Amino acid sequence: MATKIFTTTLISLIIIISSSHQLLALNHTPKFFRKFPFPSSAKSSQSQPQLDIHYETKFFQQRLNHFSFFKTPMFPQRYLINTENWVVGSGPIFLYCGNEGDIVWFAQNTGFIWEIAPKFGAMVVFPEHRYYGESVPFGSKEEAYKNASTLGYLNAQQALFDFAVLVTDLKRNYSANACPVVLFGGSYGGMLAAWMRLKYPHIAIGALASSAPILQFEDIVPPETFYDIVSNGFKRESSSCFNYIKQSWDVIESKGQTSDGLELLTKTFRFCQKLKSTEDLRDWLESAYSYLAMVNYPYPSEFLMPLPGHPIKEVCRRIDKGPAGTSILERIFEGVNVNYNYKGPAGTSILERIYEGVNVYYNYTGEAKCFELDDDPHGLSGWNFQACTEMVMPMSSSRKSSMFPPYEYNYSSFQEDCLKNFGVKPRPKQITTVFGGHNIHLALRKFGSNIIFSNGLLDPWSGGSVLQNISESIVSLVTEEGAHHIDLRASTENDPDWLVEQRATEVKLIQGWISDYYQNYKVVFDM
Amino acid sequence: MATKIFTTTLISLIIIISSSHQLLALNHTPKFFRKFPFPSSAKSSQSQPQLDIHYETKFFQQRLNHFSFFKTPMFPQRYLINTENWVVGSGPIFLYCGNEGDIVWFAQNTGFIWEIAPKFGAMVVFPEHRYYGESVPFGSKEEAYKNASTLGYLNAQQALFDFAVLVTDLKRNYSANACPVVLFGGSYGGMLAAWMRLKYPHIAIGALASSAPILQFEDIVPPETFYDIVSNGFKRESSSCFNYIKQSWDVIESKGQTSDGLELLTKTFRFCQKLKSTEDLRDWLESAYSYLAMVNYPYPSEFLMPLPGHPIKEVCRRIDKGPAGTSILERIFEGVNVNYNYKGPAGTSILERIYEGVNVYYNYTGEAKCFELDDDPHGLSGWNFQACTEMVMPMSSSRKSSMFPPYEYNYSSFQEDCLKNFGVKPRPKQITTVFGGHNIHLALRKFGSNIIFSNGLLDPWSGGSVLQNISESIVSLVTEEGAHHIDLRASTENDPDWLVEQRATEVKLIQGWISDYYQNYKVVFDM
Repeated sequence: MATKIFTTTLISLIIIISSSHQLLALNHTPKFFRKFPFPSSAKSSQSQPQLDIHYETKFFQQRLNHFSFFKTPMFPQRYLINTENWVVGSGPIFLYCGNEGDIVWFAQNTGFIWEIAPKFGAMVVFPEHRYYGESVPFGSKEEAYKNASTLGYLNAQQALFDFAVLVTDLKRNYSANACPVVLFGGSYGGMLAAWMRLKYPHIAIGALASSAPILQFEDIVPPETFYDIVSNGFKRESSSCFNYIKQSWDVIESKGQTSDGLELLTKTFRFCQKLKSTEDLRDWLESAYSYLAMVNYPYPSEFLMPLPGHPIKEVCRRIDKGPAGTSILERIFEGVNVNYNYKGPAGTSILERIYEGVNVYYNYTGEAKCFELDDDPHGLSGWNFQACTEMVMPMSSSRKSSMFPPYEYNYSSFQEDCLKNFGVKPRPKQITTVFGGHNIHLALRKFGSNIIFSNGLLDPWSGGSVLQNISESIVSLVTEEGAHHIDLRASTENDPDWLVEQRATEVKLIQGWISDYYQNYKVVFDM
Repeated sequence: MATKIFTTTLISLIIIISSSHQLLALNHTPKFFRKFPFPSSAKSSQSQPQLDIHYETKFFQQRLNHFSFFKTPMFPQRYLINTENWVVGSGPIFLYCGNEGDIVWFAQNTGFIWEIAPKFGAMVVFPEHRYYGESVPFGSKEEAYKNASTLGYLNAQQALFDFAVLVTDLKRNYSANACPVVLFGGSYGGMLAAWMRLKYPHIAIGALASSAPILQFEDIVPPETFYDIVSNGFKRESSSCFNYIKQSWDVIESKGQTSDGLELLTKTFRFCQKLKSTEDLRDWLESAYSYLAMVNYPYPSEFLMPLPGHPIKEVCRRIDKGPAGTSILERIFEGVNVNYNYKGPAGTSILERIYEGVNVYYNYTGEAKCFELDDDPHGLSGWNFQACTEMVMPMSSSRKSSMFPPYEYNYSSFQEDCLKNFGVKPRPKQITTVFGGHNIHLALRKFGSNIIFSNGLLDPWSGGSVLQNISESIVSLVTEEGAHHIDLRASTENDPDWLVEQRATEVKLIQGWISDYYQNYKVVFDM
């Protein structure tokens, strides 16, 4: 979900990163409101190896407001389509539910669909989510994002209807009425895929919802879940690493009280411009930790940033080891004391350790000489609006179990910020009213079918997803070592066995849905 | 569905009836557009015996637009509630999905729910449909019905969301979170009940959708279905009756060419004011036949009008018999010739026969001295707007199999009329895109559960409903002698065995859903 826009485009060896001052509000009132880093929303690194995929780019005229009947404008919805492998008239249609970002980027990062489509004789379609990428109403992003009255139609139900209308039209145009549609999606796109299967069973026969935190609403899961999982991801590598991070916030806060201290922080963390407050630094660090947990893949990847395999392991290794200049004695001393709330010599050492660690995330290639904060380089603030309207996901960080600064979710101040920033009042019950969530195992035990909720337990979003089978055909695939929708990514030579197996299971389940569909088709039409 | 507003309030022995000039367009372009008589939308006769039911009337503030996030007005949704029999905290909630009319009238005409609620220890709730009765936005019906921009929020999806929000709120207020909700509805209300179960499985555990023509859209059923069923209802009583009616249109048309002829028609049919055209008469007759088919109950009833049991039988008896003045020889002659396209002596006799027949419908008590046409006495044109936007139900009458004037559905002229009358362009695919309908047996064979589609085959709306089981728990209850949602009505001493059995089956199925729910509840929460 587009809370953070990362770009790793190298500009004169300066890495521009998004300012993350909106991520975690710590123990004082949030400057803005809490946002939650879905890496799927991040811009891909342009240096990242591109998948060799082929598609046509098309546009479909969509109604801006599907739920009222007075005249509303249309807007062009972009979609990518590939029919090369499609068994004309009978092969399935694989539809990726575009989420909060450029659809080309999602297509590039969902290699799984492209890899399995030929085996299935499937058409592949990637429709873009309204208000993102090139699918913006009112002629321009500027106009579309002007205020709540133009942004008002940016929501999940309108987006699902877009998909429904588009598929219905495609089926007609391609004489594909009898073709089963299978939905795919990761992160917010996974939520859309699951919800679409539930709301439009006549349009799609099943959904693979990868890392889809459909339960991250209201009081369904404890608000500490997300940051606890991030924290545990560090703790399981090294409790000293966890403790260094946990202790670092106070050091940062205390240093940041003076201009000299800010200068020191700026220098220690290699920012190109002097920090104006500690908040930017805090958010920068918190983003790194959260994203690291999400992309804690077992092999080297370049999803958000070029990273080694098991990046948290490497981050912790460096934090624990400390900068090259740390004396052996100091390290030994720290090793002994790390569990006794030791803050390092005058607080300097701990910050250098932290820098060494997050440098893995922000600068693994070592090409950056300094870091620049950039608020929202691509103007993709769409998710902010969604978070301020229906995607209200309460999150706290626990003083006890989290390595983040303690924070208790405060709905009132969240609401105030949304009113201030967008002129909208959030509707925190909207999602659970429309799509459910409370007691989902009860509601769907005898209702619905053909949904896979796949989750890796390293992914902090897994805590808000479905981690137990609901019924025979609404199932949960959990991998202990998986991170954020790793299953949707293209296969690599380094895929561990469990990932190969997970994907095989998914293929088998999807095959089951499809053959079941064809069989039922025969039964029904022979009736 | 509110196409006709009937009132049988006696005013100086003049029965005011709705002008039905909008019903059937015959072989020339419709004056307005085709509307379809759902009797459920008719105003109840005030002289009709009232059920002895008790409830509190309350209002709930609903958001006018649930699907956009800029500021929209609220409106008061009326609902009737009875908790006398409710087993506090655990008993089920029986929710009637209010349709296009005053909710008090639906409560009065849905005796079934009131009768079974005590046995179930159920709370009973009748929420009113937005834009009907007292649940109008913008402060007044006049404002709400002003134009497409104020009417734009009158649609099924907004209405379902209203129900969802209301139930969620009631559950909280009554500490009824664990209480299963069972939906009921007849006609359009039945469609809403079925759709609500499909879209909001987390809110309701099952739905009894009585006489719900959810398939009366696009090309799912042949457009001739409705009028064919009406016609067959007459034919099965008497083929001569069917033929008299079929022949009457030409006679009416030819008489109506002159002012004297219109005078004669006015006199023959006892209108208080002189007819201005034959169209009013035609629509008046067509309405009568269609409504007669719908309320062709096996016992005397006063649903729309005071009627004898098997009213079509009585209508045909009178049509066949002819007016008291008809000579025996003439009757014998007609009896012999009726199948040979005999039009009666100079066309007079056939009209008198028709009058005798429809008099059963419009004036069974014999109290009316003349009939008055009244366009829309209660200003309830809401259904017209719904029919012009999403409830687009194509209907034709076949030259061959129907007794009605032949008419071929013409979408273009329908669309033109809607543009002219409401400034809206219909969206004929809206309902099938949102709720499905095509291949419903395929789509729902392995999806969803706990829906009863109950239909009586005498009801012309049965042709657009689900008449075969879809799965083990999405079932169809068909009664050969049933008419429009007879099962939802209060029981009477004259109920035939099949009706008693039908209701018992429904109760048993609902009991099954509820005990299944409690069982699953236990399983899920013991997990």
